Amino acid sequence: MPGTGPGLSRNGRDEAVAWAWEFVQQAGVPLRPGDRERIEVAGLGLGELEITGLQILTLAAGEWVGVKLLILRPHQFFPQHRHPPSPAEGYPGKTEILRGQYGVAYLYVPGIPTPRPSVSPPAHRRRHCTVLHEVPLHPGDQYVCPPDTWHWFQAGAPGAVLWSISSRVTDAVDRFADPQVVRMAKPDR
Amino acid sequence: MPGTGPGLSRNGRDEAVAWAWEFVQQAGVPLRPGDRERIEVAGLGLGELEITGLQILTLAAGEWVGVKLLILRPHQFFPQHRHPPSPAEGYPGKTEILRGQYGVAYLYVPGIPTPRPSVSPPAHRRRHCTVLHEVPLHPGDQYVCPPDTWHWFQAGAPGAVLWSISSRVTDAVDRFADPQVVRMAKPDR
Repeated sequence: MPGTGPGLSRNGRDEAVAWAWEFVQQAGVPLRPGDRERIEVAGLGLGELEITGLQILTLAAGEWVGVKLLILRPHQFFPQHRHPPSPAEGYPGKTEILRGQYGVAYLYVPGIPTPRPSVSPPAHRRRHCTVLHEVPLHPGDQYVCPPDTWHWFQAGAPGAVLWSISSRVTDAVDRFADPQVVRMAKPDR
Repeated sequence: MPGTGPGLSRNGRDEAVAWAWEFVQQAGVPLRPGDRERIEVAGLGLGELEITGLQILTLAAGEWVGVKLLILRPHQFFPQHRHPPSPAEGYPGKTEILRGQYGVAYLYVPGIPTPRPSVSPPAHRRRHCTVLHEVPLHPGDQYVCPPDTWHWFQAGAPGAVLWSISSRVTDAVDRFADPQVVRMAKPDR
């Protein structure tokens, strides 16, 4: 049984999983009852899961392709990060397709800063958000994040379920802009 | 404007696209109106699209990851094929995750032949189906096809919408067991 990770009590984790399982079943992605056990909670060691973090249902994570559902509470924020290359393997880093399935989230990527963004990160995390071009992810919207490119996202008022469809998953080596984030081989659970 | 491909009239193509677009919108995957233009019709040069072939909505096809919706008419059959390696590039061949979204399809892969299979390929195509282990793909079911491994599939009575989520798409080099299949860089459209 994995530990709860820093900053996240077992109660906090259990409550997050229960909420995410309930929410994701409304999203139109057919799931199996056993999929509940696949939900991971990424609190990132910050102890403020309801505002910063993510629930992740991993459907596949192989050598060549990964499929996850990212489940976000209303306004939940996931900090700026990038998927770095692995030069020894000739791997440029994870290419990640983010696709809206349910609710709405806003993705931020390099580019012209959006003048009136739709959401706002927690005030004490904002200075680590340096890419400010907004890409709305309503259901059916899709964006391809190239390898090694900064991005962050935040749900709108309804919360959100996003597909993350990618080349090889490399969570353990992801780089975060905020030094308070604890990078873990596996997310908190 | 691409040609209609051998064995498939423009009317046949248009009718297949119209049917597929109507059907896929029932499947619970949010789409954009412009996605209709992304539907390709793979008749494989056989001139019997309603029984052998496939409608494909490509959502992403990049260097590292591909996302398609495979849209099958009731009992429509897609012939046995494999995704071969590209040794010069160190690519083992396409890894393909097939995941049931709507309706039902049956995937056949190497293994112990299933005694009473749920579907039956067109009689004149059957001898090119040599892998006979059945994997049902109901909504929420998922199977990872390894690179360079024979597989074929056929929809059940309701028809089917499947996700095909894969490493780099390599349609042009796919190998088919049936020599009558015309391999094309792009499917008929």
